[in-house]
Amino acid sequence: MTMVTALVLLNTEKGRINEVAEALAALPGITEVYSLAGIHDLAAIIRVGSNDELADVVTHHMLKVDGIRDSQTHVAFRVHSKHDLDDMFAIGNEEAG
Amino acid sequence: MTMVTALVLLNTEKGRINEVAEALAALPGITEVYSLAGIHDLAAIIRVGSNDELADVVTHHMLKVDGIRDSQTHVAFRVHSKHDLDDMFAIGNEEAG
Amino acid sequence: MTMVTALVLLNTEKGRINEVAEALAALPGITEVYSLAGIHDLAAIIRVGSNDELADVVTHHMLKVDGIRDSQTHVAFRVHSKHDLDDMFAIGNEEAG
Amino acid sequence: MTMVTALVLLNTEKGRINEVAEALAALPGITEVYSLAGIHDLAAIIRVGSNDELADVVTHHMLKVDGIRDSQTHVAFRVHSKHDLDDMFAIGNEEAG
Amino acid sequence: MTMVTALVLLNTEKGRINEVAEALAALPGITEVYSLAGIHDLAAIIRVGSNDELADVVTHHMLKVDGIRDSQTHVAFRVHSKHDLDDMFAIGNEEAG
Amino acid sequence: MTMVTALVLLNTEKGRINEVAEALAALPGITEVYSLAGIHDLAAIIRVGSNDELADVVTHHMLKVDGIRDSQTHVAFRVHSKHDLDDMFAIGNEEAG
Amino acid sequence: MTMVTALVLLNTEKGRINEVAEALAALPGITEVYSLAGIHDLAAIIRVGSNDELADVVTHHMLKVDGIRDSQTHVAFRVHSKHDLDDMFAIGNEEAG
Amino acid sequence: MTMVTALVLLNTEKGRINEVAEALAALPGITEVYSLAGIHDLAAIIRVGSNDELADVVTHHMLKVDGIRDSQTHVAFRVHSKHDLDDMFAIGNEEAG
Amino acid sequence: MTMVTALVLLNTEKGRINEVAEALAALPGITEVYSLAGIHDLAAIIRVGSNDELADVVTHHMLKVDGIRDSQTHVAFRVHSKHDLDDMFAIGNEEAG
Amino acid sequence: MTMVTALVLLNTEKGRINEVAEALAALPGITEVYSLAGIHDLAAIIRVGSNDELADVVTHHMLKVDGIRDSQTHVAFRVHSKHDLDDMFAIGNEEAG
Repeated sequence: MTMVTALVLLNTEKGRINEVAEALAALPGITEVYSLAGIHDLAAIIRVGSNDELADVVTHHMLKVDGIRDSQTHVAFRVHSKHDLDDMFAIGNEEAG
Repeated sequence: MTMVTALVLLNTEKGRINEVAEALAALPGITEVYSLAGIHDLAAIIRVGSNDELADVVTHHMLKVDGIRDSQTHVAFRVHSKHDLDDMFAIGNEEAG
Repeated sequence: MTMVTALVLLNTEKGRINEVAEALAALPGITEVYSLAGIHDLAAIIRVGSNDELADVVTHHMLKVDGIRDSQTHVAFRVHSKHDLDDMFAIGNEEAG
Repeated sequence: MTMVTALVLLNTEKGRINEVAEALAALPGITEVYSLAGIHDLAAIIRVGSNDELADVVTHHMLKVDGIRDSQTHVAFRVHSKHDLDDMFAIGNEEAG
Repeated sequence: MTMVTALVLLNTEKGRINEVAEALAALPGITEVYSLAGIHDLAAIIRVGSNDELADVVTHHMLKVDGIRDSQTHVAFRVHSKHDLDDMFAIGNEEAG
Repeated sequence: MTMVTALVLLNTEKGRINEVAEALAALPGITEVYSLAGIHDLAAIIRVGSNDELADVVTHHMLKVDGIRDSQTHVAFRVHSKHDLDDMFAIGNEEAG
Repeated sequence: MTMVTALVLLNTEKGRINEVAEALAALPGITEVYSLAGIHDLAAIIRVGSNDELADVVTHHMLKVDGIRDSQTHVAFRVHSKHDLDDMFAIGNEEAG
Repeated sequence: MTMVTALVLLNTEKGRINEVAEALAALPGITEVYSLAGIHDLAAIIRVGSNDELADVVTHHMLKVDGIRDSQTHVAFRVHSKHDLDDMFAIGNEEAG
Repeated sequence: MTMVTALVLLNTEKGRINEVAEALAALPGITEVYSLAGIHDLAAIIRVGSNDELADVVTHHMLKVDGIRDSQTHVAFRVHSKHDLDDMFAIGNEEAG
Repeated sequence: MTMVTALVLLNTEKGRINEVAEALAALPGITEVYSLAGIHDLAAIIRVGSNDELADVVTHHMLKVDGIRDSQTHVAFRVHSKHDLDDMFAIGNEEAG
């Protein structure tokens, strides 16, 4: 099964970084959220089983989170790693469960 | 032990995305590289044991890779995840080994 | 008959990407809408019979759609394709119908 | 079968817009190229059968074309249209042929 | 008599391009307004008899038009043309009339 | 006959503004060139009889002029004026002559 | 005595350029205000006797003027002129008076 | 003990630079605040004992200060100085006290 | 007689700020040059008797100075001052002399 | 004695961050250099006794350092701190010595 990965860069309303980060990290399909607070407040990694699931995570879940000011979703069309990320994040099982 | 994580956004010389991505993914401390080819060509995740190691990966290894046109390193000062990323990526062991 | 084509890049209000995309795709003259959610939320393709029709689609229809935050319309002054796009999208008939 | 679509915005070396547009339009997987000559010189639409094919078109074919100065590839994670674009562009057959 | 020419690039509130364009085109000193709807919604050309008249058109007339979101006025310090633009637009007479 | 109008914003190599402006103003289809020397060095107005002629002026003539560093062509999809610009610039005759 | 000079670039609320310019020009320490209406609406020159006075002009006087939308203050660390600007603007006397 | 240093670039609401600067300078972990009033209104230096303390200063203290419009936090991954900054700013003691 | 004033913002090649500033300050029509070294390296004020003279200073003198990387000339269409700048800088005499 | 402080944001040639940082930190008047490697590679703090010394540090020393690609110097017109920075960095003595 092919994993679809996307990098999301987000800015939050002032003083709500932690709160938004926690809400995002709890969503299905979002495996990690990083607090950067530079030109981007947060970076989130989405790892799902298909482009359709990705569309679902972004438009039905992620963008409904309160406190997000703007976001950019960048779909990765190839992943390079010495780790077996599919296996580590159990992509496929998680979504099918 | 505390993991230090950084997100690196990179642009490569034209036509060298794959080659640079492979070279970066092979470096110690860089756990994943994503081909985006949007406003950023690549995103890399660095996961190491300290700020000093991070400085080492960025200035001694990553920026010596041929074919990189420019890069932005964003240090994460907090990581939010439902996964135990330290354990998954064996941060600490890998560096100490 | 000469087809006039324009590429429109749009950003929507947060959480309204799908809704705006559906509304735009239903408009006469707009043949396709893509969800990108990167630096641009949506890209729409307008294919009509004249510059006048284009002006009509953009200012009377498209920009009246609720939930659009900003948009950029780029008129194509030449189209290169191995497909007969005029014929495929039946430009001319559709407008005259 | 699921179609994967991407919008590519490109700038060319001065005076080479037509030449680059023709070269891109001839590549497998690129169905249309528009001359805009505004903030972006060209827009190309890639329609292929999978993320892997997309990676192949972008990194092995498109970015090898001479005269491109820079490019941004935006993967669409959803397509909205009143036309059956998969069928019109015969995505799947074309790639399998 | 010396003509003073300025190029004004404007953005309007969403859905008000036509209305603002018509209001601007009716002002004394503004000879033409173009609907672009790209990174700039409108471009207007001001042709008057002096820098003082220009200041008057911009600050007393143009910027009072309803529906303008922002504008940039670029004074031309030289005009190159194979046409006699002063004569064609009757600059001087118009202002004195 | 319908006039097609485009606004071109250009930057030249340092110290070549006058020279480029003169070369552009001499081209068929370019009716006026303004020296701005602000964020854009020059603005040129193209007035021709069709999108095809526009493509021809931009890609075959304008972008071959020496000393241009970059340019943005913005096609106007509607013109608002109290003057009869088609008649004044004799669009159609000029091109047919 | 050493003169401290700063260049301030300002944008005003729409239609208030003249009013803001007049208010700024009346402030102690601001010797001139220019209406540009390009990417910056106004440029003001501050000429005072010390960095402390500069801080006072900017934060206590200038930024209290109504109708300013944003501003950038650029401190000059050297002045080159064939005129004796200190003497012409009587810097020092004016502030001590 | 390792010092963690971050540079924060901030913009304040109009006319509140001094007030915000004073409030920031009073926070634990922020050793200095500079009034720049250029493209950035203020620069603050955070010097603390760990990434965790940094996260605490930024998200629990700094971003709660009233009058901040936006901010960018840049974590320094190495400090170069002929002074012993750890000792001068007594990093560690201060936090432990 | 009417003074024409322009603000020029310039960037120089690295390490040549002083040299370029001195060369500019020596040109006829340029009354002052400020070293800023922020987002703009230098700001120059041009004060001349007409738009034609301004065009001459900018294109024939200023842009021929060695070491300028780029420049933006912003024509002021109104000057607000409690000083009689025309008289102070003897605009008119200087040019006529 | 009044301290003059400036924040310098710099970008270096690829792979030369450490080297440039060390060279800058060794210069008189530059008290600290931070490796950021984000949108800015380095931040340096200049602390000197006068605007003239600042001009000297920037134009005669800092910008002569090899490997700097570009830099922005932001003069602070006020410093807010709970520390006595003048005393800590011995500004005045150092310069007078």
